[in-house]
Amino acid sequence: MAKIRLFTPGPVMIPDEVLLAAAQPLEHHRTQAYQNLLKEVTAGLQYVFQTSNPCITIAGSGTAGMEGALVSCARPGRKALICDAGKFGERWGKVCDAFGIERETYKIQWGHGAKAEKVAEYLAKDKSIGMVVVVYSETSTAAVSELEQIAKLTRDTDVLLITDAITAAGAIPLKTDEWGVDVVVTGSQKALMQPPGLAYAAISKKAQDVIQSVKPKAFYLSYKAYLKSLADNDAPYTPAITLVRSTHKALEMIKAEGIEKIWCRVSKLARATRAACEAIGLKVYAQDPVDSLTAVLTPEAVKVSTLRKTLQAKYGVHVADGQDELKGKVIRISHMGAVDEYETTGAIGALELTLKEMGHQFKLGAGLSAAQEVMAEG
Amino acid sequence: MAKIRLFTPGPVMIPDEVLLAAAQPLEHHRTQAYQNLLKEVTAGLQYVFQTSNPCITIAGSGTAGMEGALVSCARPGRKALICDAGKFGERWGKVCDAFGIERETYKIQWGHGAKAEKVAEYLAKDKSIGMVVVVYSETSTAAVSELEQIAKLTRDTDVLLITDAITAAGAIPLKTDEWGVDVVVTGSQKALMQPPGLAYAAISKKAQDVIQSVKPKAFYLSYKAYLKSLADNDAPYTPAITLVRSTHKALEMIKAEGIEKIWCRVSKLARATRAACEAIGLKVYAQDPVDSLTAVLTPEAVKVSTLRKTLQAKYGVHVADGQDELKGKVIRISHMGAVDEYETTGAIGALELTLKEMGHQFKLGAGLSAAQEVMAEG
Repeated sequence: MAKIRLFTPGPVMIPDEVLLAAAQPLEHHRTQAYQNLLKEVTAGLQYVFQTSNPCITIAGSGTAGMEGALVSCARPGRKALICDAGKFGERWGKVCDAFGIERETYKIQWGHGAKAEKVAEYLAKDKSIGMVVVVYSETSTAAVSELEQIAKLTRDTDVLLITDAITAAGAIPLKTDEWGVDVVVTGSQKALMQPPGLAYAAISKKAQDVIQSVKPKAFYLSYKAYLKSLADNDAPYTPAITLVRSTHKALEMIKAEGIEKIWCRVSKLARATRAACEAIGLKVYAQDPVDSLTAVLTPEAVKVSTLRKTLQAKYGVHVADGQDELKGKVIRISHMGAVDEYETTGAIGALELTLKEMGHQFKLGAGLSAAQEVMAEG
Repeated sequence: MAKIRLFTPGPVMIPDEVLLAAAQPLEHHRTQAYQNLLKEVTAGLQYVFQTSNPCITIAGSGTAGMEGALVSCARPGRKALICDAGKFGERWGKVCDAFGIERETYKIQWGHGAKAEKVAEYLAKDKSIGMVVVVYSETSTAAVSELEQIAKLTRDTDVLLITDAITAAGAIPLKTDEWGVDVVVTGSQKALMQPPGLAYAAISKKAQDVIQSVKPKAFYLSYKAYLKSLADNDAPYTPAITLVRSTHKALEMIKAEGIEKIWCRVSKLARATRAACEAIGLKVYAQDPVDSLTAVLTPEAVKVSTLRKTLQAKYGVHVADGQDELKGKVIRISHMGAVDEYETTGAIGALELTLKEMGHQFKLGAGLSAAQEVMAEG
């Protein structure tokens, strides 16, 4: 048996229906059929993001989507405040630097999320800040930021709030319109449970006005072009047609389950996994843990590379290593995509068996029992 | 029956095997299995481009690939010479403008290709030109440029030759190393007969040296990052895994047929189609016709939108309208992808039946007979 069980925080497990949707005979994108498809995709994205704002679809990774947001929303003379709580926060700072976008950096200790109180201080101190960039779920540390509270600071000002929701949208509560988040970006291969290759963004009226007013250092990733085409259910450049078809199918399945129900499912799986790991002696890394994925510190005696290799080879279970300073120190387990109690129980079982084989001391079944307690809460 | 026959110049008809390759269970990209896949893909691209240069794969459209080339290769103080023979030449000029890359424009009458003689004049006149940008096959006019001859002008100088081979690579003769082309860009949905969503580029040593020496206004599309990752058969950002798997299958099929044989097949289909169209009173538009697609002027009395709609509705045959100044004046018929004599005969037959129904005067079967004469040449 060689099943692949992706508990990596992207790509994740995706429904067969979604894969097969991409294998239908290829149609052209300048047709009524494709325009209808894109129209429904846009509506589905609006549902996931909980917004009535236009939602664009870009052929590219989540990074492409975020770069597009930053370069499209950068105003001359206005800085970006980068909330940097890990590898991805750091990356958006690098994007600013590449394009000469002046920035202030709110550097956050790894494992913590961005705090509204601190963001308020930066905004009070420096009136030239024109956009706040927050990674809602920092994938490198599995920590969550105070997005809703930060939105309260920006929503009635001319400061834009740009959110990397790449491992957040479709996994943890996100109420774009109610909270007042200006640009929300995500990618296809995370909680939207599809193959990688697409980025999506929801864009508020306030952000649209800024986008229309600036001449961005951007062409392919200029949001202006996507917004213009979207009015005709079209794309400015040839879209990744088969992947968009997967999106359509995935969004249909998300709608059928219900977004709040998905948030509850993901939260339960996260709490069960955290309880299981703590019960077998693996400490949760983040002080502000996010529910879309879990990072746990591995015991000194357990080599992460061996642990991951064994999990893959014996059980088909893929988990991620840490990144940068966490490489070899944590494993990261996703709760996004087509996973439920059944899958998560299988993964925890595999983790227990592998750790036992590697000599880690704990009571076999303790993790599973702890997980069951959480799962039984209903 | 509702078969879709794509004679549009991208997306094109693609083999079922290629579609189905993308529907295999999703694997993670940071695995030996994926690295092996990418390694073979890179080798396959080298074969298509006829080069030993590194070939990168980017999640994005062909435009993304071209933008990456331009911004990655732009040197301070060195202009770009844009050979503008149609909509795509014009687009690369706009990309330069968006990023503040100074440019000279060699404006070419629509229907003609870029001529080496003229490029030589520009190069002699302006020593600050640092890169020449040539659209090998201009998709908007179906005209071909003198790429091989232009390469003779740049190959022994420090000027880079950047080629949009989006509707050329894998369709018409292209000998990257023998000719000395520095950057060759193409997209997945053209002659490489896959769904849209990927761009590829072959990058010469001369171009690599420039790329390493500049600080580009680019992040996601910076070639530097892709070259660095490619050394480990990796990608800097999450790759479009399922599409890369389609690439692998398509390249395997291209290798099996043989690239020279494909060039001959495409050329024969182009010549047959041109002969057929002329035989039924549709004049070939381009003075320098390319073989990857054909643009023909439609008779005054025939409305292009009605012609296209009828071809689709009755025969499932999709052809493209003209773009910009050619909109409503030509139809464009692709010879790229999974098409052969059988398919092309079907399309010409459908065109004849539709034109006859629309009242155009010609001898039924004249187009097919003319095509047969070319196809019989062997």
